[in-house]
Amino acid sequence: MPVTRPVALFNEEAAEWPHFAPHLRAAFAAAGLDVELRERFDGRPVDYLIHGPNGPEQNFARLPGLKAVLNLWAGVERVVTNPTLTVPLTRMVDPGMTEGMAEYVAAHVLRFHVGTDRHVLGQDGLWRPETPPLARDRPVGVLGLGVLGAATARMLAVLGFPVTGWSRRPATVPGVTCLGGAEGLRAVLSQAQIVVLLVPLTPDTANLLNAERLGWLPRGAAIVNPGRGGLIDDDALLAALDSGQVGHATLDVFRTEPLPPDHPFWAHPRVTVTPHIASVTRPESASRVIAENIRRAEAGEPLLHLVDRGAGY
Amino acid sequence: MPVTRPVALFNEEAAEWPHFAPHLRAAFAAAGLDVELRERFDGRPVDYLIHGPNGPEQNFARLPGLKAVLNLWAGVERVVTNPTLTVPLTRMVDPGMTEGMAEYVAAHVLRFHVGTDRHVLGQDGLWRPETPPLARDRPVGVLGLGVLGAATARMLAVLGFPVTGWSRRPATVPGVTCLGGAEGLRAVLSQAQIVVLLVPLTPDTANLLNAERLGWLPRGAAIVNPGRGGLIDDDALLAALDSGQVGHATLDVFRTEPLPPDHPFWAHPRVTVTPHIASVTRPESASRVIAENIRRAEAGEPLLHLVDRGAGY
Repeated sequence: MPVTRPVALFNEEAAEWPHFAPHLRAAFAAAGLDVELRERFDGRPVDYLIHGPNGPEQNFARLPGLKAVLNLWAGVERVVTNPTLTVPLTRMVDPGMTEGMAEYVAAHVLRFHVGTDRHVLGQDGLWRPETPPLARDRPVGVLGLGVLGAATARMLAVLGFPVTGWSRRPATVPGVTCLGGAEGLRAVLSQAQIVVLLVPLTPDTANLLNAERLGWLPRGAAIVNPGRGGLIDDDALLAALDSGQVGHATLDVFRTEPLPPDHPFWAHPRVTVTPHIASVTRPESASRVIAENIRRAEAGEPLLHLVDRGAGY
Repeated sequence: MPVTRPVALFNEEAAEWPHFAPHLRAAFAAAGLDVELRERFDGRPVDYLIHGPNGPEQNFARLPGLKAVLNLWAGVERVVTNPTLTVPLTRMVDPGMTEGMAEYVAAHVLRFHVGTDRHVLGQDGLWRPETPPLARDRPVGVLGLGVLGAATARMLAVLGFPVTGWSRRPATVPGVTCLGGAEGLRAVLSQAQIVVLLVPLTPDTANLLNAERLGWLPRGAAIVNPGRGGLIDDDALLAALDSGQVGHATLDVFRTEPLPPDHPFWAHPRVTVTPHIASVTRPESASRVIAENIRRAEAGEPLLHLVDRGAGY
């Protein structure tokens, strides 16, 4: 009787296939896995779904025999609520994605801290020396201390900022004051001159930064949101920007992406829109994570980065 | 017979006096020093000159009894060549200045690396996701590994960049490949996508980045110069920017400061001028360094940060 090779189906938009396929095949080979990688569903059984929210197969009931859904991206808010999902779901924890996130946030936090926009936008021939404070005198808050948040908070602490982090699950990050709960959130926001949003989007965190909580920030604070658009109440943010309560917002994620050209964020003088580039899954390193989880599933070992479906992430 | 109190004369432009005087007095008290701090020269003897290039006393022969010149700034190129200088000269090594320098450079290196200008200057409603490489794939070169250069190189290495440093004196910086000599300079420049200039300005380093050496850089490399204006041949740089050989230059220091409004750097689309703000002496921490050196001189101990007048720094 022939040995049955496990089948992995790539289920993200077709444009991603050429970026991932060679790295997935290489990662399977490197892990000693004999896996059949399929580009699209053809009715035959599938063991593992290498999944993204833009893949053609969003009805998992059509895939009998499915053992696990392995998400390609860090955020799972669109798949965790899928009623046809009955097998384990993993989220992507990709070292390349983590590094890229910390670099994006460090760049934008330092941009605000050092005040580089004043010079990038103001090459008018006038010499106006103004020295920024030192990082040690610029408190920063990081909301969310999962893999991405913790790495980012750590990077900001190493840069010299006093960093306070906040998370639902208790966390420990070297050099970072870690808080939780409603009081912790107020404590973080009340002193943060720069706030970074890296909490997962769940029913609990939708509109986390609403009008009341934006009001807790020191006047003129800056916001960097590379997490999810739904974490901020857009209208409350626009009002806070107009009043000067929030001094600047750098936003990478939005309720609707691409952000429509007529959205007020594009034209607002205190907003910088970036097109969901803060961090992306890097096919080479992400493929190794997918391969490791298939190896674990085949060996009956626990999967890495399993989603807690009750918590939503 | 009354004990004679040592006299320290503040010799920088008058506008600096109110920033420094209270911190100097506090630092003297904290060091247990009974020093008379004078705001200006009145003909009476002076033991220590707390010195800057814009102070009124530049003829040290007028100050009999002078024991040491304690420079307020990191750069000493204007005082080391003073023919009336016959006593020991120290340069300023101020922890606040060092931190500020590393922060300025990290901000501008990350700005180029992540490509934030594209978004700061291009809020046009068009969604163009382009992901930058990871820092680990972006080689950076740091010319100069003194206190400022070493701290900056270290910070960039911690951010994930592969950093190669170059210095005249042999140096060791954790996580940084340290080279020297003419071959080392060529090796650093040949692979650096971003180059940071933090060498002292001496006859040996004037026009260090000339047309030939700018040509060694990978095409499109970026330059960050928070060191001294004289380290770069301005005309060669403008030509390299026009040709695209150099992709961007962020310049904080210039042959003439303030940079004249009609200087071509202000209008060049590939140049960002910042007004000598990369790092400044912070009066509080710098005053502690001045006090420590006066304490050492009074106790007959060797001074900190003594300038090697032969080397020029």
